[in-house]
Amino acid sequence: MIEISSSSNPHFQIWKSLLSSKGLKKEGLFILSGEKLIHEFLQNPHLEIHAEILNKKLRPVTNGAKKYILAQELFDELDEVGTHFNLLILSQPEVKKADLTQKSKGLHVIAPLGDPSNLGALIRSAEAFDVAQFILTEEAAHPFLPKCVKASAGSVLRIPLLKGPKLSQIQHPTLIGLDLNGENLTEFHWPKDCYLIVGEEGPGLGQIQLYKKIKIPISGVESLNAVIATSIALYSYRSQQTLKNQI
Amino acid sequence: MIEISSSSNPHFQIWKSLLSSKGLKKEGLFILSGEKLIHEFLQNPHLEIHAEILNKKLRPVTNGAKKYILAQELFDELDEVGTHFNLLILSQPEVKKADLTQKSKGLHVIAPLGDPSNLGALIRSAEAFDVAQFILTEEAAHPFLPKCVKASAGSVLRIPLLKGPKLSQIQHPTLIGLDLNGENLTEFHWPKDCYLIVGEEGPGLGQIQLYKKIKIPISGVESLNAVIATSIALYSYRSQQTLKNQI
Repeated sequence: MIEISSSSNPHFQIWKSLLSSKGLKKEGLFILSGEKLIHEFLQNPHLEIHAEILNKKLRPVTNGAKKYILAQELFDELDEVGTHFNLLILSQPEVKKADLTQKSKGLHVIAPLGDPSNLGALIRSAEAFDVAQFILTEEAAHPFLPKCVKASAGSVLRIPLLKGPKLSQIQHPTLIGLDLNGENLTEFHWPKDCYLIVGEEGPGLGQIQLYKKIKIPISGVESLNAVIATSIALYSYRSQQTLKNQI
Repeated sequence: MIEISSSSNPHFQIWKSLLSSKGLKKEGLFILSGEKLIHEFLQNPHLEIHAEILNKKLRPVTNGAKKYILAQELFDELDEVGTHFNLLILSQPEVKKADLTQKSKGLHVIAPLGDPSNLGALIRSAEAFDVAQFILTEEAAHPFLPKCVKASAGSVLRIPLLKGPKLSQIQHPTLIGLDLNGENLTEFHWPKDCYLIVGEEGPGLGQIQLYKKIKIPISGVESLNAVIATSIALYSYRSQQTLKNQI
C-alpha cells in the first residue's frame, strides 16, 4: 500500500484530471465510485483496474489491484459525488464512432446533453427500455464523468455507447424528434427501426431534418424536462413493440 | 437603492438563510431567480415582492420594490443556481395541510423526495400532466429552495402544493404505488380518482398499504430514476383519461 499525502503527487494529479472531460479524454481512465456500483463491477470485472484508492478508514475490496491510501482531503477531492467508499481507477470501455450511414435496427438514441447528471439519467432510461445504441453528439458531456456514471446507476458500463458528430450535422432518413408541433405520442405508431434524437432544453433541435415529429400532450407548462420527455418516448416505443410481439 | 457590502448586514443574513429549509420555514420568504422565471412572474405578480437584489452590473426590473445593490461576492452567495440575473425576495405562497380523509378527485401525487432538484423536476411533470394536488410528505425537501424552484421551471408557483404527514403515516383507500411486483403499467386501468404515492430510490414504499401496485416494464437495470418512473406513470394516467374523454 502506498500512502499519498501531497496534492502534487503525479498519480493524484492524473486521478484528479479524471474529474474533467479533458483528463478523461487524455488518460483513457475513469473513476468508479459508489459501494453498490463497485460491488456490481467486481462480480464481473470486465475492465482493467489500475488502482484502488482508499483513505485511512477504508478497507480494500479488490485483490490484485495496486492500492493507495490518500490523506482525507485528497480522497475527498476525488470522491466528487460524496460516496465515502473506496474508489476504483478503471480503463474506459471503448466508445466507437457511430456509423450513421447504416440502417437503424431497433431504437437508437442520439443525445447532445451537456449536463453529466442529465446524460447519466437518460443513459439509465435507455438501458431500461433496451435501446440498441446510444449515440453521444460532440456537445454531450463525457459519459465517464463521476456524476454521469452515478446518475446512470452503472448503465454507462453496460449499454452500447457510440460517438457521433455535432448535433447540427446529424442526418438520417429515420430521425424522430420531440417537437411541440408534433404528432400526439399517445396516437403515434413507432417504426420498429428508428433514431430518436434529443434536443437540449431551450435550443431544441434547430434546423435538423426530421422524418417524424412527436409531442407529449401536456398542459400548463411550456415543456417537460428533456430527460423525462425522452424517457416517456422510450417507454412509449418499448411498450408498443412489446404489445406487437404479443399479437 | 441601498448598497450592502458586509456579510453581517441583517438583510443579507435573512436572505442567505433562504438557501436552507430552516430559514425558509422561519421567514416565510423565498428567492426567485432566473431571468425567464422573473419575467413570467412580473407579468402577473401574485406574491408580495419584499426586495429586488442587484449587483453593480444589473439594472432593476421591478418598479415599486425596494432595491439593494450587493457586493459581487455577496450577490454570488445568494445566486446559488448561478443565474447572474436579478433576484427577487418574495412571500411564499401558502402551503396548506393536506386532508387525507377526503375522497380523491382526479390524480393526487404524494412525494417524499429529499433532493430539491428531483422534487422540482417532479413538480414540473405534475403540472404538465395536470395533477389535482401535489402533497409533500415531511421527508420532502422544501419546495421553495432555489434548486427546487429552478428544476420546477416555476411550477412550484402555479401548482396546488400541500403538506402531508410522514411517508410511513400515509393512509388512503386509493393509494397506488410503483413496485417491481406490480401490474404492468401498459395494461393498467387507472381509476379516475386516486393517489399516486412515490417512494425514494432505495427504501421505496416500505410497509405502506397500497390499493394497487404498478410496475413499468424494464430490462437490464434494477429500476428507473424515481422522478422519471413517476413521470411515466403520470403520462400513462393522463393519456388514458384523455382517451376516455374522447370516447
